[in-house]
Amino acid sequence: MDYRRVDDRENDKESSRGDLESLEGKPIADHAASRNNMYSSAGSSSKLSSWKLKSIVTLALTLLTSSQSILIVWSKRAGKYEYSITTANFSVEALKCAFSLAALFRIWSTEGVTENNRLSTSFDEVSVYPIPAALYLVKNLLQYYIFAYVDAPAYQILKNLNIISTGVLYRLILKRKPSEIQWAAFILLCAGCTTAQLNSSSDHVLQTPLPGFLMAIVIALLSGFAGVYTEAIIKKRPSRNINVQNFWLYIFGMLFNMIAIFIQDFDAVANNGFFHGYSFITVCMILNHALSGIAVSMVMKFADNIVKVYATSVAMLLTAIVSVFLFGFQLSLAFFLGTTVVSVSVYLHSIGKPQR
Amino acid sequence: MDYRRVDDRENDKESSRGDLESLEGKPIADHAASRNNMYSSAGSSSKLSSWKLKSIVTLALTLLTSSQSILIVWSKRAGKYEYSITTANFSVEALKCAFSLAALFRIWSTEGVTENNRLSTSFDEVSVYPIPAALYLVKNLLQYYIFAYVDAPAYQILKNLNIISTGVLYRLILKRKPSEIQWAAFILLCAGCTTAQLNSSSDHVLQTPLPGFLMAIVIALLSGFAGVYTEAIIKKRPSRNINVQNFWLYIFGMLFNMIAIFIQDFDAVANNGFFHGYSFITVCMILNHALSGIAVSMVMKFADNIVKVYATSVAMLLTAIVSVFLFGFQLSLAFFLGTTVVSVSVYLHSIGKPQR
Repeated sequence: MDYRRVDDRENDKESSRGDLESLEGKPIADHAASRNNMYSSAGSSSKLSSWKLKSIVTLALTLLTSSQSILIVWSKRAGKYEYSITTANFSVEALKCAFSLAALFRIWSTEGVTENNRLSTSFDEVSVYPIPAALYLVKNLLQYYIFAYVDAPAYQILKNLNIISTGVLYRLILKRKPSEIQWAAFILLCAGCTTAQLNSSSDHVLQTPLPGFLMAIVIALLSGFAGVYTEAIIKKRPSRNINVQNFWLYIFGMLFNMIAIFIQDFDAVANNGFFHGYSFITVCMILNHALSGIAVSMVMKFADNIVKVYATSVAMLLTAIVSVFLFGFQLSLAFFLGTTVVSVSVYLHSIGKPQR
Repeated sequence: MDYRRVDDRENDKESSRGDLESLEGKPIADHAASRNNMYSSAGSSSKLSSWKLKSIVTLALTLLTSSQSILIVWSKRAGKYEYSITTANFSVEALKCAFSLAALFRIWSTEGVTENNRLSTSFDEVSVYPIPAALYLVKNLLQYYIFAYVDAPAYQILKNLNIISTGVLYRLILKRKPSEIQWAAFILLCAGCTTAQLNSSSDHVLQTPLPGFLMAIVIALLSGFAGVYTEAIIKKRPSRNINVQNFWLYIFGMLFNMIAIFIQDFDAVANNGFFHGYSFITVCMILNHALSGIAVSMVMKFADNIVKVYATSVAMLLTAIVSVFLFGFQLSLAFFLGTTVVSVSVYLHSIGKPQR
């Protein structure tokens, strides 16, 4: 389902946030220490407290998302890559699907096949799974058209609208009521992230023509809706094994990515082959995307979309800090101010009790 | 007492905020409608509720402070001015003193001379009044030296430290305890104001050498301390007429400004005369400074330093918006983001109940 571009041809930097609305479910492979615990949590006998589980998946998402952006910068330094984006996205879906199946085999061998972890499903259960995948397809097609009105750095700024749209849709669809303080925190998160990304050319975002703005809003709504809808699907059956839920989500993800290959890259794939232009770094990026996709899914199951937005926002800031050491990037005053505002937002979100 | 420079030779723009820690007490002359009410409030028979009074003085301060910055821009457009800053500051103090006396004459004619509105004072009462004036003198001298390390736009950014220092000293000296949310709001106010002032050259603030940073912190502390100390002086005797309190503050303001004239501009004044180089706009600026000084004093008496900081911050944003219409300024994305953060800060400050 992860329609997020594996490379970053349309985005200048830190494409990590808000665009990672994929749906996965295998415990994060590189958190080996917590692996067995998470396996059983995903099953029935939870050993970790809900809080601990939530923290681990959030941390995993944050770290994977930051390393994602760093891989993108690294790959840009390594030179141009010539693979087709749609095949890479398909590969990510296929890999996540494989991870989910592997996790399920392991669970079946220890716990046996139960009502909650069996792969077979009902039409009632599976019928909603294509919806997020279809939303991502529409969103990704729209992303092609928006570049007629907006350039890449400006779009990077406009993508922060995802934060607001996720908050609003989360409220409307999942019927959770964030407190007034949490709403304030959410507005601050959006303003802080945008501030942190400001650079000398940011001002021309204000010259974006109306169709560009409207498309950015539609994309933000589609993206937010897909994320919130996925959470609704996953949480509707709390005892259902997350790996099964993800298996089905990824099946549709593969299907819709296949459609994207036909629409966008049919000729290139037909002439040069599916894996044309793949390099070591491409493989790293696909693996990273698959793992962070899985982390997103775990966050959806054990936390929520709001936590996801915070994790990916903090990841954006982490990426910039790590880039100072790795690539000699300079941090701007705007970055410090944005980071301050985001930190206050995280604090306010944590102290603002929701009215549930 | 108002040692704030009437012109703006060292500051690039919007010098309005955080530097207006003068002490005044005549009701604001251009709020004629509320004049009589405020007179009697400043006396004994309060007709306006405390809330209404607080709102009026806050609004007056905000409007006067924004028009101050606009006058500065206007005066810059009108060309160079050749008057000495220290004489202008002295004139502001003298004018405020005259306003206070005029208000007192009017009060004496309607209410008679009472214990609370008599001009004569005790050593115990008057002995603390020179302290803020002395602090401003030291601060203004330091401001000359900081420009060896920091240029004007960078100092404009560093002056936002005043917001933090005022909050901290307000807490320490007046023993008020802002709530956690109000602390968060205060950090946001500082970050938001700085963000709103960002421009393409702001980043070199980060290259400020350590002595420059330390001096900026000392100046912020002096300025914050003078403001909070003035509030303490004025509030120590709640029933004492504000015009009498201000009369004494301004007497010392005149005295210390006289010292500044001797230190900085003795030769110029001796050779060219006291009012050399004064133009119509100089007179407007002196009048505006006197009135906003009086508004600051009213805010100290009927509200507090925190309200003052918010009023002057909002004034800075108002100035920028008005400048779009008056001078064709362009608002930046940073300005919108900063304004959003400041607005959320105002909201959070209002909902965060203090633990008093």
